Amino acid sequence: MNVTDLYGPIQSELLDVEKRLESVWKRGSSDGAELLNSILGHVLDAPGKRTRPAITILASRFHPHDHDLPQIMATAVELLHIATLVHDDTVDNSPVRRGKATVSSRWGRNVAVLVGDYVFATSATFVCDTKNVRVIRRFSETIMELSKGELSEIFLAFNPAFSRDLYWERIYEKTASLFSTAAESGAVLSGAPEELVQCLKSYGHNLGMAFQIVDDILDFEGTQEEIGKPVGNDLLQGTVTLPTLLLLERYPDDNPVVKLFQDGADDGNLQRAVDMVQNSGIIPEATSIAADFSRCAIEALDPLPDNTYKRSLVELARFVMERRR
Amino acid sequence: MNVTDLYGPIQSELLDVEKRLESVWKRGSSDGAELLNSILGHVLDAPGKRTRPAITILASRFHPHDHDLPQIMATAVELLHIATLVHDDTVDNSPVRRGKATVSSRWGRNVAVLVGDYVFATSATFVCDTKNVRVIRRFSETIMELSKGELSEIFLAFNPAFSRDLYWERIYEKTASLFSTAAESGAVLSGAPEELVQCLKSYGHNLGMAFQIVDDILDFEGTQEEIGKPVGNDLLQGTVTLPTLLLLERYPDDNPVVKLFQDGADDGNLQRAVDMVQNSGIIPEATSIAADFSRCAIEALDPLPDNTYKRSLVELARFVMERRR
Repeated sequence: MNVTDLYGPIQSELLDVEKRLESVWKRGSSDGAELLNSILGHVLDAPGKRTRPAITILASRFHPHDHDLPQIMATAVELLHIATLVHDDTVDNSPVRRGKATVSSRWGRNVAVLVGDYVFATSATFVCDTKNVRVIRRFSETIMELSKGELSEIFLAFNPAFSRDLYWERIYEKTASLFSTAAESGAVLSGAPEELVQCLKSYGHNLGMAFQIVDDILDFEGTQEEIGKPVGNDLLQGTVTLPTLLLLERYPDDNPVVKLFQDGADDGNLQRAVDMVQNSGIIPEATSIAADFSRCAIEALDPLPDNTYKRSLVELARFVMERRR
Repeated sequence: MNVTDLYGPIQSELLDVEKRLESVWKRGSSDGAELLNSILGHVLDAPGKRTRPAITILASRFHPHDHDLPQIMATAVELLHIATLVHDDTVDNSPVRRGKATVSSRWGRNVAVLVGDYVFATSATFVCDTKNVRVIRRFSETIMELSKGELSEIFLAFNPAFSRDLYWERIYEKTASLFSTAAESGAVLSGAPEELVQCLKSYGHNLGMAFQIVDDILDFEGTQEEIGKPVGNDLLQGTVTLPTLLLLERYPDDNPVVKLFQDGADDGNLQRAVDMVQNSGIIPEATSIAADFSRCAIEALDPLPDNTYKRSLVELARFVMERRR
């Protein structure tokens, strides 16, 4: 099954989300807003996988509902995701995203900060159009969590005294929070009973955790030629992720990560750390932890009726485990 | 009358707002959030004039109401203002704000971008606590307008082909939008009839316009020694404000601003432009335009009953005309 199959049952709804995204940058503009619109087009009209809006729409299909609301919400969720990408790329000085120049590399960091703000605010106006205060509040909290997760990454960079609890907290904030909100809000807006809402929220949470762990594992796989950036790039930035954490737990003494954080990458410490991660069974261990989260996501769906949407959610949780960049 | 007199009738409400602001950075924190809290304390515990929250509270006092809601909203309004300051200072590379180092100068631009996002999101959660969807939506639109105004300043920098309409639009977006929202939301949350809401919204709008014009005039007054930055700093950044616009209108040919934007500040063009603004009656003309907006703000209050809160709002509109940095 590929992504198109996964999204088959909600294809027309996702098309509607694309139209709503288009409305953001194709709307009539006053003098001086043409450039803003073209920058918005640049970031919104890019080939994303639209995983988060798909979750919102799928989560809304377990209860009869007003079809418009989940699609408005799905648009908001994707806009929020894109706003965080614009700011993250600015913070990371990344040159390319989704095959295109980033806003910060093409128009400068200042424009990127303000365009990110604009997209954040636009996402919030979409959520407001759902007129559901619970969903709107959850959305604001998610933005807090997203920025808190990114800040924690900066604050705790190059610090080998890291714990699993800190790692769970951070990947929840950075990633699983929005997955969880995407699922919860779709369910809430469909008017589903609270029990089902909680199942879908738990699905989103666990799926997001698996998604981020797989991302963190991928950072250690392949070669620099294959992936276009250094293998172990997170480590090079001072970010401890699950594979590094497992390495630190396994070899508390004489660990290349500690040396790398103390002395920098010059001395072959990065290569040594990457080799150890790649060759000491750490990747399978981390993968099995991600698979546990994926399994929890699927189990959270147990109380839901079996239908085509549930099957898509289940397949999505399996697909996340198989994805390659 | 000074600011303390102006705010006399709502002193206890403003104290309550300070406590709510404190709650943002004094709240219990998980591991790794201490640094975030101390940065939040740095920006929130600074001596601001709290003009915008005062407007929200004053605007709420023309109708019996639940006292909590306007104070929650006033807190959100000040948080939003502070979030924009954090990002503006990042974009402008400003070293000092309210007598303290800016977040970007002390913790770096990356931290400043993310802390700004966090404060934006925190402000949104406060607005959500009012549970009033009209107010929440207006708030999101205001964030869009704020970032749009800042972007327009960047996009149209060093462009002497500027019009009054563009100037009105930009200062509405940059400043008057939030003043207007501060007043409107206070009135809406007090349950005031729509007619009064519109009066107070118009008051906020006009007051904000006057406020920004006075700000733009102050940029041309005094000497570099008095104000600690170059006189005509806006002009140096390529930003056309009302005094510059009047100068361009008055001397369409052989204008130092055009030369400054084309050739840079080396050639004495900045000094020549500043001298012309200071000595050709442009400051009084711009001041009289600001005074018109201030008068419109006061007139918008006509239908409101005469009471101590109305008198504060009237005095505030007069005070704005007299302020010095």
